[in-house]
Amino acid sequence: MNDNDNLSFGDVQQAAQRIKGAAHRTPVMTSKTANDIAGAELFFKCENLQRIGAFKFRGAYNALSQFTEEQRHNGVLTFSSGNHAQAIALAAKLLGIRAVIIMPEDAPALKIQATKGYGAEVITYNRYTEDREAIARQLAEEKNMTLIPPYDHPDVICGQGTAAMELFEEVGELDVLLVCLGGGGLLAGSALAASGLSPRCEVIGVEPERGNDGQQSFRKGEIVHISVPDTIADGAKVTHLGHHNFAVIQRHVHDIVTVSDAQLIETMKFFAERMKIVVEPTGCLAAAAALHAAYPIAGKRVGIILSGGNVDLSSFAQFIS
Amino acid sequence: MNDNDNLSFGDVQQAAQRIKGAAHRTPVMTSKTANDIAGAELFFKCENLQRIGAFKFRGAYNALSQFTEEQRHNGVLTFSSGNHAQAIALAAKLLGIRAVIIMPEDAPALKIQATKGYGAEVITYNRYTEDREAIARQLAEEKNMTLIPPYDHPDVICGQGTAAMELFEEVGELDVLLVCLGGGGLLAGSALAASGLSPRCEVIGVEPERGNDGQQSFRKGEIVHISVPDTIADGAKVTHLGHHNFAVIQRHVHDIVTVSDAQLIETMKFFAERMKIVVEPTGCLAAAAALHAAYPIAGKRVGIILSGGNVDLSSFAQFIS
Repeated sequence: MNDNDNLSFGDVQQAAQRIKGAAHRTPVMTSKTANDIAGAELFFKCENLQRIGAFKFRGAYNALSQFTEEQRHNGVLTFSSGNHAQAIALAAKLLGIRAVIIMPEDAPALKIQATKGYGAEVITYNRYTEDREAIARQLAEEKNMTLIPPYDHPDVICGQGTAAMELFEEVGELDVLLVCLGGGGLLAGSALAASGLSPRCEVIGVEPERGNDGQQSFRKGEIVHISVPDTIADGAKVTHLGHHNFAVIQRHVHDIVTVSDAQLIETMKFFAERMKIVVEPTGCLAAAAALHAAYPIAGKRVGIILSGGNVDLSSFAQFIS
Repeated sequence: MNDNDNLSFGDVQQAAQRIKGAAHRTPVMTSKTANDIAGAELFFKCENLQRIGAFKFRGAYNALSQFTEEQRHNGVLTFSSGNHAQAIALAAKLLGIRAVIIMPEDAPALKIQATKGYGAEVITYNRYTEDREAIARQLAEEKNMTLIPPYDHPDVICGQGTAAMELFEEVGELDVLLVCLGGGGLLAGSALAASGLSPRCEVIGVEPERGNDGQQSFRKGEIVHISVPDTIADGAKVTHLGHHNFAVIQRHVHDIVTVSDAQLIETMKFFAERMKIVVEPTGCLAAAAALHAAYPIAGKRVGIILSGGNVDLSSFAQFIS
């Protein structure tokens, strides 16, 4: 673990070694129809096909695989709106570590179920009235467990960067890389990967319109806090970027743009109808930016990270109806 | 083209050379959850991620790429309930050949639209009152076009066999290969691939319960005709196996089993919820047999071909609701 904020591509390379064999090397898909719509050459890195259905497994496994004997004995604790919960639960199970997960009581049923299915203990809280970070810190202290937060952590950031690293390894340098942005784990990690493998690539974060704290922070030069945003992108319902994440984003990210919930739904339909894959609303952020011209990419080679596919079937059926 | 019924693995190898670069080499997916349900090690060959969303592109391109100058000039004609139509349309477009497609008027709107989208001319007919093969033969004669039927053709069979060939190349020999069965193009081609690359593998066709003409034919030793079956597996709504197909099936297939429409829906949900992919009802046939124990596979290494993903979004939403 690298505790300061001088994270670099080398840290992502080390993470890649640690997760090798544990995480899937997910496929990169292309679509002529998508290219025609965007007027660009698009490469979709399918982290919806990753273990637990999202990129989050990469960061979780990278963090937990570095635990000391004592840490492994006392267990891991985290808070998460969903995919990070499952990621920690599965990584802990694979590594034989006890896991306690603090989840919002209104998280998708599928995500709560899956987390319990991996053998983790789940504690729920009200995300509108309670402070999950305070609850987590108190529990961690009482039980001497190690807290691995969903994004504000160097090992989590570097683990997430391995998805973009694999993308560059497979398709070569890119002009633009569009990345879904919630707390900034995937964006910061991807930017580190780009800095090493495609240094001229513009790395762009994509947020929901109604939860643009990242964009505000990026433009203001300091972390802006907002209230819990009202968006279907449940994985991006965060109130502020992480500190470690923001430091990397300021150094390596080119811009942050936004898309609407309606554009996310159109994009979800496109993936189901034309590319035959299920992508959750948050996972559509980057692709929505490409298909709805939220950032100029005409004529360019563009990487797009589809961050996850965990959406309740009933919600998904409604979205695509 | 090999006109007699002594098709062999060598013909599939030649087809593989012809389609190289034109067809996608589709990914092979695995799922721990699916393995747990089936009590076996399953390898899913994802032809729903093939061009036009189904394996049919392989056979169509293999056939059309062998056209003479005169055949190319006069164009190609076919009849199809859907995926073969799009396959011929796209292959014809790529090879600069005019295409006329005869489609049932109740085919999924998405399939008719997509076929026209590739620049083919579409003629519709009533599948309950009219004989598509007679219509096709008449048109072919009048316009001197070459008829490439959806399954009863050596080049089509050998092209379809390349999917199973890639699967064996990627995962090695298998104990069982489960294959969706409509007219028998995919099943016959897959059996030829297995005969060359995994000779001890049991190749099993899977049909809809209410359209088990293949099973009846296999057991009786002659092609049995049925009326158009009532099943959600629209790609398997055929009334009889092809002659070329049956000859190969008799030589190389181990058994033919059936699954219910309810099992197809459960399987479609499983793919969307757990594996994040869209598989059409017909494409779920082989997987449904594995997940619902239609054939004994406990403890075995089992290949499963997901034949396609072309289902109207509105129908798909209803199926998974």
